[in-house]
Amino acid sequence: MIQGLGPCDPGSNPGTLTKNINRYKRTLMNTEVNQNKMAKEDGITSKKSKNFSEWYTQIVVKGDLADYSPVKGCMIIKPSGYKIWENIQAYFNIILKKYNVKNAYFPLFIPESFFKKETEHAKGFQPEVAWIANKEDERLAVRPTSETIIYDTYSKWIRSWRDLPFRLNQWCNVVRWETKATKLFLRTREFLWQEGHCVYSTKEEADKEMLLILKEYQKLCHELLAIPVLAGKKTEKEKFAGALYTTSIEAFMPENKALQMGTSHNLGQGFAKSFNISYLGKDEKLHTPWQTSWGISTRLIGALAMMHGDDKGLVLPPRIAPIQIIIIPIFFDKDKKKVLKVANKIKDFLKDFSIEIDKREEYTPGWKFNEWELKGVPLRIEIGPKDVSKKQVVLVRRDTSEKQAIKIKDINKKVSNLLEDIQKNLFNKANQFLKESIVKVKTWKEFLKAVNNRKLIRAPFCGDISCEDSIKDKTNGVKSINIPFDSNPEGYCVNCGKKAAYEVYFAKSY
Amino acid sequence: MIQGLGPCDPGSNPGTLTKNINRYKRTLMNTEVNQNKMAKEDGITSKKSKNFSEWYTQIVVKGDLADYSPVKGCMIIKPSGYKIWENIQAYFNIILKKYNVKNAYFPLFIPESFFKKETEHAKGFQPEVAWIANKEDERLAVRPTSETIIYDTYSKWIRSWRDLPFRLNQWCNVVRWETKATKLFLRTREFLWQEGHCVYSTKEEADKEMLLILKEYQKLCHELLAIPVLAGKKTEKEKFAGALYTTSIEAFMPENKALQMGTSHNLGQGFAKSFNISYLGKDEKLHTPWQTSWGISTRLIGALAMMHGDDKGLVLPPRIAPIQIIIIPIFFDKDKKKVLKVANKIKDFLKDFSIEIDKREEYTPGWKFNEWELKGVPLRIEIGPKDVSKKQVVLVRRDTSEKQAIKIKDINKKVSNLLEDIQKNLFNKANQFLKESIVKVKTWKEFLKAVNNRKLIRAPFCGDISCEDSIKDKTNGVKSINIPFDSNPEGYCVNCGKKAAYEVYFAKSY
Repeated sequence: MIQGLGPCDPGSNPGTLTKNINRYKRTLMNTEVNQNKMAKEDGITSKKSKNFSEWYTQIVVKGDLADYSPVKGCMIIKPSGYKIWENIQAYFNIILKKYNVKNAYFPLFIPESFFKKETEHAKGFQPEVAWIANKEDERLAVRPTSETIIYDTYSKWIRSWRDLPFRLNQWCNVVRWETKATKLFLRTREFLWQEGHCVYSTKEEADKEMLLILKEYQKLCHELLAIPVLAGKKTEKEKFAGALYTTSIEAFMPENKALQMGTSHNLGQGFAKSFNISYLGKDEKLHTPWQTSWGISTRLIGALAMMHGDDKGLVLPPRIAPIQIIIIPIFFDKDKKKVLKVANKIKDFLKDFSIEIDKREEYTPGWKFNEWELKGVPLRIEIGPKDVSKKQVVLVRRDTSEKQAIKIKDINKKVSNLLEDIQKNLFNKANQFLKESIVKVKTWKEFLKAVNNRKLIRAPFCGDISCEDSIKDKTNGVKSINIPFDSNPEGYCVNCGKKAAYEVYFAKSY
Repeated sequence: MIQGLGPCDPGSNPGTLTKNINRYKRTLMNTEVNQNKMAKEDGITSKKSKNFSEWYTQIVVKGDLADYSPVKGCMIIKPSGYKIWENIQAYFNIILKKYNVKNAYFPLFIPESFFKKETEHAKGFQPEVAWIANKEDERLAVRPTSETIIYDTYSKWIRSWRDLPFRLNQWCNVVRWETKATKLFLRTREFLWQEGHCVYSTKEEADKEMLLILKEYQKLCHELLAIPVLAGKKTEKEKFAGALYTTSIEAFMPENKALQMGTSHNLGQGFAKSFNISYLGKDEKLHTPWQTSWGISTRLIGALAMMHGDDKGLVLPPRIAPIQIIIIPIFFDKDKKKVLKVANKIKDFLKDFSIEIDKREEYTPGWKFNEWELKGVPLRIEIGPKDVSKKQVVLVRRDTSEKQAIKIKDINKKVSNLLEDIQKNLFNKANQFLKESIVKVKTWKEFLKAVNNRKLIRAPFCGDISCEDSIKDKTNGVKSINIPFDSNPEGYCVNCGKKAAYEVYFAKSY
């Protein structure tokens, strides 16, 4: 083994070592780095349309969002990926403020007895809990979700109608001991999320705010991530363990699989009863309140990569991109000063955007083009000596590769419009795909045909858990996604032929 | 037990149940709430000068910064406390950007074998590690600090001189299984912090940036928290396990105990060697880099409470306070509309500050005064019908209780100046206390006298670990705090009489 490279950890991406060795070799032969294009193995070597899974791993790892970790099932979120998460946090913290939800922090550990208090919840989460082997009398779980530890506290804090509505949120890490293969951002044993936990005096209030949050999640996906999502209610089989009912937003990925992007639960009064949460009403009697909980996670970053990425790497929507604009100055020694001066001026003009200049001299412009395309930066500005003399720059869109020369004096407005256009274009493309993926069926034959075509199927359904199990068995894993809010309850269940309760979206999912 | 109150958890503050029962009773007899003052037991019932420890717990819990949790040794950070942490994060994220340090996120779990790689580090942390009892072959630690998991990754990421300096930070939770009694914010099994991890090609760069960060920590304490701190180097005995040397900032609390507020380590090349981090230099040879790590934690929130709080509750410096100004409208029914209109106008005038109006009608103004004093809001604005007709409001400072009527037209400038004045006053008071607490000694007799007077002692010291152990033994726990940067190496060790290596601050500490 080459000294200094370190062992290839069993948990790490098999591609990493190869990549490292190659980088090492190139470093040794400095001239090789200075070729016009990035070495092939540093770019994306799989096609989105051919080997989606390998392509996804490559754009995430090589696009610098995340890396595999030596701890099996866990991931490392790299600075670009973490910045996307910070952008989501910043956006959502404003929403939280609007609804008067305050941030707080509860312990990572949950006593075992707490889980047992809400039977359904315990049944749902116990299998994937990681336990601490410490010297305490009682086993401690590493939180897979925090309902139980938080509601125990709420039983002490909430006393009277004056305390309601009571609304808290926490940003934290959670752990679910997945046994299936790791998929960066989508299925890891640890992930980051926010979990909101609210308490109301009536079911109506809980229903209303649960839905408001779901709509905010939908808006976040549409406006920030440029990912269209379907809002609806989960079936009995798929609802959150312990909830009265669950609503969700769901995206359909280019691999023709549905991805749950966020959930908002009306927990009913079950947790309140199990954890002794009650409040004194204006009528001076004790009442049991209603509760909601809701969450989105770092999974959204994976969705972002999957949805918009292409065979050259990531394609990030401008509103969420860590770097919105990259300036590549192009020069030989004699023009260097002149070109860099203009580059700096442009950066200053555009200081309201997240913008950087790639001034590195050890890489060629061509190499840099490839690297920033790989990282998904929405807009590239090229400035060469000729551009300087013409008082222009060249703008290159990441999403369409369109190139245009524009006068420097118009740059602010032009860039602003272009970024908005890129944002819209990405949403529209994704929305077009979603629309084309949906197939409405009425019969089992049509259903099976749609399954074979890997569609997002909208079908009348009876609502029975056993019937849903049967569909899953007969289709090698097709699951209910959610019940659209505009569901039409007419017709007959696509599987059992009983009177339908509602329409349901069905698909393979992550 | 009264129905709905829930059991008194063993982990919770014994005062909580009593408080809850009392609140419950008052709620039942609504008129009792409407008394002019807060019920005595809801206020602070201990004196800072008499029973500091009980006083501290009360201001933290009743001042709504934090609460005890049902998990022994863990705490719940309440919204006010968490907002202070978010303010610290916002401030420090700007510093990180200035030094080109990027945020990332590494796994919560660390394989046992990683700890063993750096011997001193393992010895230092192993005793307080919590372990996961899972089905993996290797035990996993819940991170007490992340050097090992991060540096294993660095060994894969860092290849050439082009990658250096390499600077990352993460904001996360860490777990250290403390066996001593819990002290909210100061000693809990889980806490939140940031940990910076940087890699440099030379010792000089590592020295320089390690110190720059320490100075930024000092500035944060001085300018944001209004807490003066002493910057210096830790002795060999007290340095971070695995570091070449450690620097720290240290505050002296009103209980006459030193509190470590932040540390910045030059890790030397030890970790790099243990984790196989190397880089290819411009000379085309492999080199071992130099590393630093540095951190501050939610402990700072505890320091804030201790340092400035008084017998009425918290006193928060304006620059860090979650709410800087509270407006209390004072009215009977007939004036309500008029007074609230002016209150809203004032809030709008002062919208650049963090400001709220307490419009609740179920509490009297007097009760509200007490509550917001308890929570430490720096400035109170009272507006009654008489004030409205005189076009004035009354400002009341939390730190000095000074009252003054001012014309509404002058309010913006006046409030701005007043908040700055409060910030300065709190720092000056704390700084005065620090200065008065420091005693320079040369002999063991003087040393012992200063120990008895609970002073922060500056004394010449030989530097030997065994001599430091001996001082600790002979004084029932007095420890070295740090070695001031302007240390005078003349004279003889206060304990053993050998030639002194430097001066050291000694004190009891948390």
